[in-house]
Amino acid sequence: MPIGRIVIDDVRPRTPAGQHPAKACVGQAVRVSADIFKDGHDILAARVRWRPEAGKEWSEAPMAPTGNDRWEAVIVPTVVGMHRVVVEAWTDRFATWRHDIGVKAGAGQDVSVELEEGGLLLDALAAKVPRARREVVREAAAAVRREQCTLEVRLNAALDDALAAVVAGVPVSGDLTRSRPLPLWVDRERAVFGAWYELFPRSEGGLVGATKRLPDIAAMGFDIVYLPPIHPIGRTFRKGRDNTLEAGPDDPGSPWAIGAEEGGHTAVHPDLGTIEDFDRFVEEARSHGLEVALDYALQCSPDHPWVREHPEWFHHRPDGTIKYAENPPKKYQDIYPLNFWPDDDADREALWQACRQILEHWIDHGVRIFRVDNPHTKPLAFWEWLIPSLRAEHPDLIFLSEAFTRPKMMSKLAEVGFTQSYTYFTWRNTKQELTDYTVEVCLGPKADYMRPNFWPNTPDILSGPLRNGPPAAFRMRLLLAATLVPSYGIYSGYELCENEPASDANEEYLHSEKYEVKERDWDRPDSLAPFITRLNEVRRAHPGFARLGNIWFHGADKDEIIVYSRHDDALDDVVLCVVNLDPHHWQEATLSLDLGRLGLDGAGSYEVHDELSGQTFVWDGAHPYVRLDPAEAPGHVLHLRRAPR
Amino acid sequence: MPIGRIVIDDVRPRTPAGQHPAKACVGQAVRVSADIFKDGHDILAARVRWRPEAGKEWSEAPMAPTGNDRWEAVIVPTVVGMHRVVVEAWTDRFATWRHDIGVKAGAGQDVSVELEEGGLLLDALAAKVPRARREVVREAAAAVRREQCTLEVRLNAALDDALAAVVAGVPVSGDLTRSRPLPLWVDRERAVFGAWYELFPRSEGGLVGATKRLPDIAAMGFDIVYLPPIHPIGRTFRKGRDNTLEAGPDDPGSPWAIGAEEGGHTAVHPDLGTIEDFDRFVEEARSHGLEVALDYALQCSPDHPWVREHPEWFHHRPDGTIKYAENPPKKYQDIYPLNFWPDDDADREALWQACRQILEHWIDHGVRIFRVDNPHTKPLAFWEWLIPSLRAEHPDLIFLSEAFTRPKMMSKLAEVGFTQSYTYFTWRNTKQELTDYTVEVCLGPKADYMRPNFWPNTPDILSGPLRNGPPAAFRMRLLLAATLVPSYGIYSGYELCENEPASDANEEYLHSEKYEVKERDWDRPDSLAPFITRLNEVRRAHPGFARLGNIWFHGADKDEIIVYSRHDDALDDVVLCVVNLDPHHWQEATLSLDLGRLGLDGAGSYEVHDELSGQTFVWDGAHPYVRLDPAEAPGHVLHLRRAPR
Repeated sequence: MPIGRIVIDDVRPRTPAGQHPAKACVGQAVRVSADIFKDGHDILAARVRWRPEAGKEWSEAPMAPTGNDRWEAVIVPTVVGMHRVVVEAWTDRFATWRHDIGVKAGAGQDVSVELEEGGLLLDALAAKVPRARREVVREAAAAVRREQCTLEVRLNAALDDALAAVVAGVPVSGDLTRSRPLPLWVDRERAVFGAWYELFPRSEGGLVGATKRLPDIAAMGFDIVYLPPIHPIGRTFRKGRDNTLEAGPDDPGSPWAIGAEEGGHTAVHPDLGTIEDFDRFVEEARSHGLEVALDYALQCSPDHPWVREHPEWFHHRPDGTIKYAENPPKKYQDIYPLNFWPDDDADREALWQACRQILEHWIDHGVRIFRVDNPHTKPLAFWEWLIPSLRAEHPDLIFLSEAFTRPKMMSKLAEVGFTQSYTYFTWRNTKQELTDYTVEVCLGPKADYMRPNFWPNTPDILSGPLRNGPPAAFRMRLLLAATLVPSYGIYSGYELCENEPASDANEEYLHSEKYEVKERDWDRPDSLAPFITRLNEVRRAHPGFARLGNIWFHGADKDEIIVYSRHDDALDDVVLCVVNLDPHHWQEATLSLDLGRLGLDGAGSYEVHDELSGQTFVWDGAHPYVRLDPAEAPGHVLHLRRAPR
Repeated sequence: MPIGRIVIDDVRPRTPAGQHPAKACVGQAVRVSADIFKDGHDILAARVRWRPEAGKEWSEAPMAPTGNDRWEAVIVPTVVGMHRVVVEAWTDRFATWRHDIGVKAGAGQDVSVELEEGGLLLDALAAKVPRARREVVREAAAAVRREQCTLEVRLNAALDDALAAVVAGVPVSGDLTRSRPLPLWVDRERAVFGAWYELFPRSEGGLVGATKRLPDIAAMGFDIVYLPPIHPIGRTFRKGRDNTLEAGPDDPGSPWAIGAEEGGHTAVHPDLGTIEDFDRFVEEARSHGLEVALDYALQCSPDHPWVREHPEWFHHRPDGTIKYAENPPKKYQDIYPLNFWPDDDADREALWQACRQILEHWIDHGVRIFRVDNPHTKPLAFWEWLIPSLRAEHPDLIFLSEAFTRPKMMSKLAEVGFTQSYTYFTWRNTKQELTDYTVEVCLGPKADYMRPNFWPNTPDILSGPLRNGPPAAFRMRLLLAATLVPSYGIYSGYELCENEPASDANEEYLHSEKYEVKERDWDRPDSLAPFITRLNEVRRAHPGFARLGNIWFHGADKDEIIVYSRHDDALDDVVLCVVNLDPHHWQEATLSLDLGRLGLDGAGSYEVHDELSGQTFVWDGAHPYVRLDPAEAPGHVLHLRRAPR
């Protein structure tokens, strides 16, 4: 596309090449920005126009320059689904004329010709504004011409204001230029903001038992209950307890070794219950305000029906056997990876459709959220096809990418359609690491399309200060995950501070629940449940926690103290989080707050109310002192209020 | 374009959206890089292929990973003109197999099936390699199969090496993926590397007099002699000396008020001589190894023939007059801007063609380099059309953009085709400013397509330490311009340290040559000519000075001392520049050299030879001490040599 009359470059939000949609959320402000400039010194005007792909009406908002030829508007989408966003710019001839004639008249120059130019300009404008407002513009044209004899512009002030309002945003220059329309996918709120809770239903006695846990999970304030695969588990090469190669007769096997004679990805493991039990689980969850997320793990145990019915969907070895999963020298003989690129295109088509039908099956059973296992070991082209095609029918679908892999693959998966992504949060522990990483995922260009989900633990990962760590470490990492980003999750057992690693060689849990049933005493008096409950209440009380980009880091003169604020779109509601990263010792620090970012410019003294402890302090200025004892609390979550004057 | 089997993203060099060509130079290394990755754990291979647009043969070079999924190859274009660059990637099944079987055999696993897999893989490869090399691959396949009985891979080592060489770069996987072809414009060397000298021929007695100056200019080591407009100058509203509104009868007027009854942009001002004089000037310059650059200033005096012949090419006011140039409240009544977007498309077409014909006229007279006056006040669409269309016929054309305007417009002009750009160097004075700006223009993403030209002064700009500054300031700014980037220039009089500003209100020279004839004594004993001569010799002696990206900044424990190295593509020839930014006092500092970037890793002691003073020192380690007295020299330009062992 050649350059038009006006340059409109680098429109955001967008994915790197603009071919896949950027992401937004219903009811949340989206900052649309672009570089806009043209030759010469004329004053420009610009606006953003957007509409749902399904709709006909364009909405529009005027853009304003923010410096260095960057322009910006804030829009708030109201409908879920695909949208188109276009930036338009044109020469604002009226503003240019008003500016120039003002300067000339101010310098005492003869402006009679300029007044006539203004009259002609307004004549042209009159033809473009809606009929009802035309008279105002005509009057203005006449008034401008009446001033021809004078050296100063003395447009009737009221008329001038009315005129500016009428002509604002009316492109009259003939050089209106449009950006290429960019796709913007608008999600429902849960795609951005939610607290996840992962549990193995078999440890609760199956789906019926897990259903009984739902009121407690809801009471803790979680939004999503995520279940590892609930399907029949293969017997061939089943893994035993602690990931051993020989399973005992009572060992339940890994839920990720999907498929047995009882069925594959659309079946429910008989030990967990029936599909009706599952439907009741979903229904009961919904009644408690919880949504159910299922695991979508595209691999098969050797006993999966597909192995028999569709051997062409697997990799074969010269000896006729099917290839099991490997990461040499490691072998995963209980799992067959699928061959997403078989030689025959018809086989590929059939396999991809079969994978799609798995999701359709669970969608029919009320599931709208899928946690996708290892998406980086399946083709990006598959996700690029699958997710948009399903979301065209079900725009409320949410896909969480479990891509614990290299950064470019992680963000590419987000680019091609994943709603959210697991992140490296689990391995970011120091103040510098946490700051850099949060800034990258919340404020960097990737935040246009990748949404982080912070998990302090997963069934695969017990890491950092949690390994043999004290309850204070669990509180601290939970507080960080829940307040740094809108979406976070924990794997059950976290509230009981389960902290025993399997070995120094990896990040596995001792006696991992992946290979055995766990019994837990949920009513233990030292459970973190009350703390979690309060944290989720606080998250819901302050809109800043629901918004990905609304974070700012402040200073503290101690490496162990991290300080950041979360604010709503209008900076009316601001919460300041001060966290002690040392779970073993109390720490103190003098803070360096950016008062402007807190909405406290010129506030004098102000109240801070700790949402965790219930205490209220009065602070003054940008450098308050804090002291945090991990035995009491991992930090402050301070709601800011200007003090009454 | 949907994602293929393999992701190939962010291919560089390129302009931001990849639609306009990136820039390279004949004989200079181009680093072609891309993000390349796919799902899973297979080993990938990649190559870059390129060819001149006019050619049929593709050249290719293997790419290697440099970390974080980035791959890179260095190519060296050999032909001027437009090129296409494509990155290709595929799964290297042979390397993947060699890796996996090695790991498995090393772990003592049975690899008999893997050996048969290898045999099949090599059978497939044999069909793809050139016939002459097929036997080696067949032998390898047989050898692999002979090993089936063993647990370890014992391919004959010589065969293994031969095989690796034969199959390297042969895509056999069937998943070969290509990037979109990117355009790359390859320039001749002068487009990147050159020393410019600007002079007003009227101050030398016209073209004949200026011709006599050419040997001296060539002797100083300049490559390009640039003349402000040489066309007839209007009389209507002609500017007088010191930019006054009333010209005296003998005032020559500004050369940029182009056009009089003697002619317009294709005529030579009668006071300067004839077109034959101009031809002789060009010829004489060529015989001294100099090229002539002309000014391309698209505006007209009220007396320009176009005003009479093509009033439709100008802006008109309601009173019937033609609009003169303004920047309210300033008026430039001696200049009419052209209306590049007249209402009638045929008028636009005719004007744009007429502008093109001006260049064709001077191209016919041997000019290949144009310094373009204020390109940012003409449409980008005009340049986007003009430059490539002319360069398709004359690939040796060079356009220097004089866009002293906001940064995004400056780089956009480079993006649409300008060969080089004037820069903000003139206003970068501190160590931090110079470092940041040089890194931005030499090493940032804009360096893919924008080439800076550093000018310490121009007829419009006497700034910073040069204003009323000592000769030491002139030496220092010249040294910086000449050694920070490959292209730099000075406006004549610089060598005489002309330093008197017109006023504190602007950056004009007192008694500016733009409005009057200047007489100068070129033979003054304090002329900087010898210093300039030596500097240009040094620039030519070390290939690093000819290369835009080959710069690295080193540390010094003093803000007044800036340190940077320039190196050739292979790091065989390295020059270290150490400059004292304080022209008034001596300064000393301890340096912190990055020895790796100097090719001195593990060098022990090394010799540094000062190309300016002729002195040689022996240094040892990364922290030498320097002391620089501006009365003697503005700095060191040190050619590094490893000391003999």
